Amino acid sequence: MRFSVSSFLAVFFYFRRVKKERPVILVTNDDGVTAPGLHALVEAVQPLGDVFVVAPDSPQSGMGHAITINNLLRLDKVGMHGETQWHQCSGTPVDCVKIAIDKILHRKPDLCVSGINHGSNSSINVIYSGTMSAAMEGAIEGIPSIGFSFLNYSLEADLTGPKKFARVIAKNVLEHGLPEGTLLNVNIPNVPYKEIKGVKICRQAMAKWEEEFDERLDPNKRKYYWLTGKFKNYDHGEDTDEWALANGYVSIVPVQFDFTAHHAISFLNKLNYDVEKIS
Amino acid sequence: MRFSVSSFLAVFFYFRRVKKERPVILVTNDDGVTAPGLHALVEAVQPLGDVFVVAPDSPQSGMGHAITINNLLRLDKVGMHGETQWHQCSGTPVDCVKIAIDKILHRKPDLCVSGINHGSNSSINVIYSGTMSAAMEGAIEGIPSIGFSFLNYSLEADLTGPKKFARVIAKNVLEHGLPEGTLLNVNIPNVPYKEIKGVKICRQAMAKWEEEFDERLDPNKRKYYWLTGKFKNYDHGEDTDEWALANGYVSIVPVQFDFTAHHAISFLNKLNYDVEKIS
Repeated sequence: MRFSVSSFLAVFFYFRRVKKERPVILVTNDDGVTAPGLHALVEAVQPLGDVFVVAPDSPQSGMGHAITINNLLRLDKVGMHGETQWHQCSGTPVDCVKIAIDKILHRKPDLCVSGINHGSNSSINVIYSGTMSAAMEGAIEGIPSIGFSFLNYSLEADLTGPKKFARVIAKNVLEHGLPEGTLLNVNIPNVPYKEIKGVKICRQAMAKWEEEFDERLDPNKRKYYWLTGKFKNYDHGEDTDEWALANGYVSIVPVQFDFTAHHAISFLNKLNYDVEKIS
Repeated sequence: MRFSVSSFLAVFFYFRRVKKERPVILVTNDDGVTAPGLHALVEAVQPLGDVFVVAPDSPQSGMGHAITINNLLRLDKVGMHGETQWHQCSGTPVDCVKIAIDKILHRKPDLCVSGINHGSNSSINVIYSGTMSAAMEGAIEGIPSIGFSFLNYSLEADLTGPKKFARVIAKNVLEHGLPEGTLLNVNIPNVPYKEIKGVKICRQAMAKWEEEFDERLDPNKRKYYWLTGKFKNYDHGEDTDEWALANGYVSIVPVQFDFTAHHAISFLNKLNYDVEKIS
């Protein structure tokens, strides 16, 4: 009797420990809870740990690092798929990460992954991207974090390649961590899986959008505008994400949330800030 | 007759040239077109050039670098105050900068200033701030750009000090420009003007928000949440914006929009990204 109780406890604690050691992985995105890219990312990381999804209840593309200050937030469980709990939140991608930690996980996850975004977040797009801002929020919380994006806007796109690379990169980050204060911006080129040449670690290309607003008239003859634009890459370096993607490589850019331009400090120290002289 | 025509033309072109040489200054913010901080910033920069205001038609705090992709934009002239044209836009602070260039100015301004924000945008707040994102958008467009914030949330706050420092810093930037790819994050401490000790050029402090969501029940007994949090500074450096502000200085942090964490590239190059081995 005594032997069998202790055996039972030993087995119980063994399994509990094994279970506890599985990493907790938070998955979010900016295309919303129904996006195929989110489902693909869940499948990609499911073998690596216990997966929790907390994603926006509607598309949040271009939300950048927006947070919901002046409105309330809703958070609803939308069910279990296999072992994975799915939740949707009425807020932005950054809100999703914040509320997941405080209200769903009650701890920091071991990994935070965002995406797979339907469309590029290379170069300057990192700034506008809700996908990347969710990952950045994870990094600010001290969680190893990665944003994944696929250079194909179609919701019907074949996600085989993106899924495979998401898994290998997530596994690496779970095993080795990331340097303090950094996260990863991963973009996958729009070529069939077998044609992807490999992975390149890159810097963010100096590129931008040249905007043109499309001017229209509403039925009441009042003007309104749509934001449109053309992407322009001004950077000819072969160490950039744009170069890697154009040449069939998956690009990984390490990103930091310390935005200080240290090289500009000495320039600024030479200027004169005497308020009384100017006024 | 011939002489008087040429004299007239000489005088005409002289004044046209002088007028053309006045810098064009774009002013925006994230607290919206009615905010006292915006009016204070217009007054601060009016002596320095021809001022155009294009600001959100409603408060946009915490919008980060959001842009309006999935909705239309409105843009309305709200009048002239003295020499200054005022416009309001239904979009985010970043939208305001983009549409101002394309639809109001039809050129890039010589200076883009954003603020004066009612509340701090020091340290990690640079990431969430609509004020700073508008300035960052200006910098991406190649425009010398500055975001100003005052560490006093009250709309009734005395803006004498912030206005004086905004003017001297804007004048410096108009005269000397900024290093390529950088903008300024200026925060003014919440002390009376006469007690401000001066200006410090700083780095972004490593600080963050510790979030707690306030859980409530709506009249239908359904849960909803408000984002709340406590600001925590983990950085004891005396070269940070948090230190400067706590010690009575105006902080100026040079900010860059190249987010690449160059120091992490060699670490990432050592990892193994062989997809076939893991799958």
